[in-house]
Amino acid sequence: MSKTIAINAGSSSLKWQLYVMPEETVIAQGIVERIGLNDSIFTIKHGEGQKYEVIKDIENHEIAINMLLEQLTALNIIDSFEEITGAGHRIVAGGEHFKESAIIDDEALKLVDELAEFAPLHNPAEAQVIRVFQKVLPHTLNVGVFDTSFHTTMPAVNYLYSINTEYYEKFGARKYGAHGTSHRYVSERAAEMLGRPIEETKIITCHLGNGASITAVDGGKSIDTSMGFTPLAGLTMGTRSGDIDPSLLQYLMGKLGLTDIKDMINILNKESGLLGLSGVSSDMRDLESSDKESAKLALEIFADRVRKYIGSYVSAMNGVDAIVFTAGIGENDINMRKEIINGLTWFGCEIDEARNDVRGDERVISTDDSKVKVLLIPTDEELMIARDVEALKK
Amino acid sequence: MSKTIAINAGSSSLKWQLYVMPEETVIAQGIVERIGLNDSIFTIKHGEGQKYEVIKDIENHEIAINMLLEQLTALNIIDSFEEITGAGHRIVAGGEHFKESAIIDDEALKLVDELAEFAPLHNPAEAQVIRVFQKVLPHTLNVGVFDTSFHTTMPAVNYLYSINTEYYEKFGARKYGAHGTSHRYVSERAAEMLGRPIEETKIITCHLGNGASITAVDGGKSIDTSMGFTPLAGLTMGTRSGDIDPSLLQYLMGKLGLTDIKDMINILNKESGLLGLSGVSSDMRDLESSDKESAKLALEIFADRVRKYIGSYVSAMNGVDAIVFTAGIGENDINMRKEIINGLTWFGCEIDEARNDVRGDERVISTDDSKVKVLLIPTDEELMIARDVEALKK
Repeated sequence: MSKTIAINAGSSSLKWQLYVMPEETVIAQGIVERIGLNDSIFTIKHGEGQKYEVIKDIENHEIAINMLLEQLTALNIIDSFEEITGAGHRIVAGGEHFKESAIIDDEALKLVDELAEFAPLHNPAEAQVIRVFQKVLPHTLNVGVFDTSFHTTMPAVNYLYSINTEYYEKFGARKYGAHGTSHRYVSERAAEMLGRPIEETKIITCHLGNGASITAVDGGKSIDTSMGFTPLAGLTMGTRSGDIDPSLLQYLMGKLGLTDIKDMINILNKESGLLGLSGVSSDMRDLESSDKESAKLALEIFADRVRKYIGSYVSAMNGVDAIVFTAGIGENDINMRKEIINGLTWFGCEIDEARNDVRGDERVISTDDSKVKVLLIPTDEELMIARDVEALKK
Repeated sequence: MSKTIAINAGSSSLKWQLYVMPEETVIAQGIVERIGLNDSIFTIKHGEGQKYEVIKDIENHEIAINMLLEQLTALNIIDSFEEITGAGHRIVAGGEHFKESAIIDDEALKLVDELAEFAPLHNPAEAQVIRVFQKVLPHTLNVGVFDTSFHTTMPAVNYLYSINTEYYEKFGARKYGAHGTSHRYVSERAAEMLGRPIEETKIITCHLGNGASITAVDGGKSIDTSMGFTPLAGLTMGTRSGDIDPSLLQYLMGKLGLTDIKDMINILNKESGLLGLSGVSSDMRDLESSDKESAKLALEIFADRVRKYIGSYVSAMNGVDAIVFTAGIGENDINMRKEIINGLTWFGCEIDEARNDVRGDERVISTDDSKVKVLLIPTDEELMIARDVEALKK
């Protein structure tokens, strides 16, 4: 049986899922956390609810991957490494080069390294993991699945910022977006649920998690998205500010006595968003159970920014057939979905409270009369990764 | 007869209009340009098309104002200075204090000075002009009419950025907006043209000039606007970038070898927008007569950003009755209005090409069937200033 592993590597973590393909059956999944720190946590779930966990220092990704492969055989999940014929690696920045998922040979790997400039925390870790795979599983096909690929169909009118075009031509300063694999998956599912060819649909996909982005998917293609040159732009997020008057950076640096813009951007990435607004937490659940006014206001601001992006993308497509909610908040936050949609009745959106009263189930949550359909679709980036690997095996 | 002068002072210019009140008749108007530079230009228009112009060095605003007063008597426009009972001064930054136009006594003047932090190029020049008026026309009532006042009705959900709320509480870091006097004037006129009490209307006002902003006016009150902490944010403008991923500032500063964020903000204010995109000009007319692809793209981007803000403000109000075009581009650019509205047909906007084929005339330019009315309303900030002075004389 041919098996494919989908890998999502961060700078200190490694999430994975092992599929039998083309059946798309998940036979094991796991996560390694705190790589390079003390007391790393190594977890595998497999079979009928079986769980293997060990806590020990895991110094780097190579050690983590070797541990993982040993345990896959030790736990009889696979008989030999040879069975893993494909590995799909989520890669954050694919720039303009990777318009779709691609086999990662040495030349492609060099490009992934070069694109580190656009994702300094992510691309180097991902390239490193691919190198380990090349070494320990030399027979396995490595495929890169890029967060940005789905958005490479954006037209220049939407990916260009209103700055000197030389900054785009010389330095690649443009909108790249993120969460592309998720937006692609849920928009494809949405068209299936609408029962229409995706080419004839206008869909707005709301990937609302700790990081959050909204995409206008016109005829199956991303034509605009709320994240920008980096994932800092767009919506209010857990700890990220999203959009902000650029002048405010200068003003705040003066007030805070900062001289390096790096420190200001760090504040906007890590101490802002829901956390900065509420002073309570970056987690939606904490805000909803808090009785502080600032927590309530943070929730209102989150909903408002989502609604405004939805409105702006109805403009960008001059229409909308469906709005999709996905990711942590989108899949599980019943109140937030209701709040957002209840502010969009003029657009012809009407939520069905009974249908909406669910977490993580794929379904229509608007009323039968709702002119614009509202869909709840749990995302599955790992499945998209496994499918892309499968397609490139042929 | 009681006369009121409306003053719009910039750092090197002084525009004015002299009204007979309460009749609202303009009896003279003029502009002094290049104050503090060589060959300043002093112009007065009055009577039936009469024009007085002189070019000479005018060192400062005090000299300009004294010249103006002398010429008003010399040209027999007024008999004596005593006739000018009111002077209304446009002031850019009113912060949270000036929620409406106010008599400027010494205490208020001190506040205008203090607010210079939010408008370093404008407030000091405006305060200086008021001091000159206090000196040369001691009997005249000075009134400040603030660009920001109309926007002080914005709710916190819209004026707060998603950053640490301490930055708002301690430093006043929030959205203030601009062009408030213009948005107020055209939204009031729009409600009159709709024949409905303004309290029952939802109006989106598009002030599109070299500086450009869009406001959501719900029940006669500004509830959101596209300019931000400063007039840099929001739409693509003549030379201003509008919204941009804040991370891009850090990236570009690295690429351009800049160490002071002031230089980066300067680029975003002065070398970006239509000018930066097109490489041709910041003036819409130059772009429309250019055959360069970059000029065409800049026009498309301008229209796109206007449409997206309109869509987001339909969301913010959960509805819209009318969209208003005003200011240089909004009043005169027939093609741009058409381009914008033709991308919003899903919202129920339909332009009437014959009605739209006009410059600077107050009228409905949508079809009779258009669900959302589209209005062309030439702005008149000076009249609003004169009216506010008149109201405060009582």
